[in-house]
Amino acid sequence: MKKLLGALIIVAFVMAIGLPGTSLAADKIKIGISIPSADHGWTGGIVWWAQKAVEEWSQKDANLEFFVVTADSPAKQVGDVEDLMVKGIDALVILPHDSAPLTPVVEEVYNSGVYTVVVDRGLIKEAQHVYIAGDNPGLGRVSAEWMAKEMDGKGKIVVLEGIPCVINTERVEAFKAVMAKYPDIEIMDSQPAYWSTQKGLEIMENYLQKYDKIDAVWAQDDDVLKGVLQAYKESGRDDIKLFLGGAGAKDIVKMVMDGDPLVRADVTYPPSMVATAISLAVKGVKNIPLDGFYQMKIPSRVILASELIVPENAKDYYYPDSVF
Amino acid sequence: MKKLLGALIIVAFVMAIGLPGTSLAADKIKIGISIPSADHGWTGGIVWWAQKAVEEWSQKDANLEFFVVTADSPAKQVGDVEDLMVKGIDALVILPHDSAPLTPVVEEVYNSGVYTVVVDRGLIKEAQHVYIAGDNPGLGRVSAEWMAKEMDGKGKIVVLEGIPCVINTERVEAFKAVMAKYPDIEIMDSQPAYWSTQKGLEIMENYLQKYDKIDAVWAQDDDVLKGVLQAYKESGRDDIKLFLGGAGAKDIVKMVMDGDPLVRADVTYPPSMVATAISLAVKGVKNIPLDGFYQMKIPSRVILASELIVPENAKDYYYPDSVF
Repeated sequence: MKKLLGALIIVAFVMAIGLPGTSLAADKIKIGISIPSADHGWTGGIVWWAQKAVEEWSQKDANLEFFVVTADSPAKQVGDVEDLMVKGIDALVILPHDSAPLTPVVEEVYNSGVYTVVVDRGLIKEAQHVYIAGDNPGLGRVSAEWMAKEMDGKGKIVVLEGIPCVINTERVEAFKAVMAKYPDIEIMDSQPAYWSTQKGLEIMENYLQKYDKIDAVWAQDDDVLKGVLQAYKESGRDDIKLFLGGAGAKDIVKMVMDGDPLVRADVTYPPSMVATAISLAVKGVKNIPLDGFYQMKIPSRVILASELIVPENAKDYYYPDSVF
Repeated sequence: MKKLLGALIIVAFVMAIGLPGTSLAADKIKIGISIPSADHGWTGGIVWWAQKAVEEWSQKDANLEFFVVTADSPAKQVGDVEDLMVKGIDALVILPHDSAPLTPVVEEVYNSGVYTVVVDRGLIKEAQHVYIAGDNPGLGRVSAEWMAKEMDGKGKIVVLEGIPCVINTERVEAFKAVMAKYPDIEIMDSQPAYWSTQKGLEIMENYLQKYDKIDAVWAQDDDVLKGVLQAYKESGRDDIKLFLGGAGAKDIVKMVMDGDPLVRADVTYPPSMVATAISLAVKGVKNIPLDGFYQMKIPSRVILASELIVPENAKDYYYPDSVF
């Protein structure tokens, strides 16, 4: 036993000082994670979930080494990715600040053989092994299906849209497609609130002045919903029976969990997608097939479902120490 | 101990004879699988992989009950799905014969609360929990990247396309986008071979008459490749250095595995996608998150990677008892 221990110590020592081309450090799998910086809101959630996945994977597998870098601009992020390349990463997980300026450097990474996972914001050219994102039409569809059911198929709705862009259009069109099946539901108005709490407050004040009776509000986003709820509270009215936001912010999930009579559901567009992206990078670079899959590689495209959060399951979606 | 055993036997007996509303059969999770019938080719592979997944899941979980039905026409498949509904299925896995005629019945299934997984051929309206398919642009891209590398970035190619349709266009455009980066590679011709061995033979005979020198052939499909190889053999020529099909048919995978000098790779468009679809239906209906995923539900959209099969990994893709 002593002899074996001695041998092991020698092996450990040799590994620690390193042999040409076979040092311990060189054997580690290096995974770079490049994300936008933020300390609140949805992108704050991205940073929090990236750190959570890194912690969990580091505990599970000592052979993994992670480098998490955050950027406050596309230019900074291009530099971040170049720095990660110098570190010799085996895999890159990136949520691009902006698609166009990040595409060339990610293409370079991909072409150099690094396992590349792009999150949420797609590149303008295919240059990744895996693309993972949320389901925008799904968010609109799940929201509308739940609202129509809760409204017993009748009533007057106002909608607060996001920033006018493809994401918003996909959500709103899917929402309206479902509502079109209910002749007794009327969408009275639909204006952009730019995914902003302040804008949500302003638009909702306007709606409350404009319409004597509103049955339900679709705010599409939890930040907007916070402004909407404030405007409604300040108005002193009590006609609205139902408010629905979106994304799964912890304050709103808590309201659902606590049985709030007006905020009875939420729909995910989960910042935890970056954590899943990190898992897929680990499995991809280590050539581990997904459990239950009959293929060898990770899928090239994964769109995460928009999940309905209701009082019965809200605790599964509540992360009190998250920033989002 | 004896007492406990006795109690267990009574419990088992009660379970076996059944109690009103709680019979053992009623507790089983019923999963219907509706696919086109075929005894050869890619759809033959679909039937084989569906049966394989059903066998494996049945062994793993005695609480699952599967109904596999095959249809030779869209009308027959509509009837099949209606029959499955009468059986009280909890989940449906369907590869639609044709999108338009199957959409209404699948929408009915989905709206009734049955967990619905649509494979390969999408519906004309969103009416599923999960859509899973192969990666057509990926097939073109992976094929072109490998060919360009094998050709050292230079040479003359002929292409045999599939049936003119979106799938073919996505594959061919992605192929050409990669090849455009290589100024010394020339695509001399690109004609439809309709994913048919006979057509592949005819088009290849024509190419061999038309062009004195060909360096490489992209047939996009293994059935087409079989015709191409026959035409080349009969021509007695020896100028072509490289042939690439697609899909992962066992005869072609075996050639790769055995070190054929001309057929050195294949690219998957795997009929095993239906087996993965069955796994996702089981996990979805049982509310089991995917391993490594930080979400509760199965993704709403999964596009399987086009995987490159080369001599080093070909044995992982070779299923000698498969029909495809």
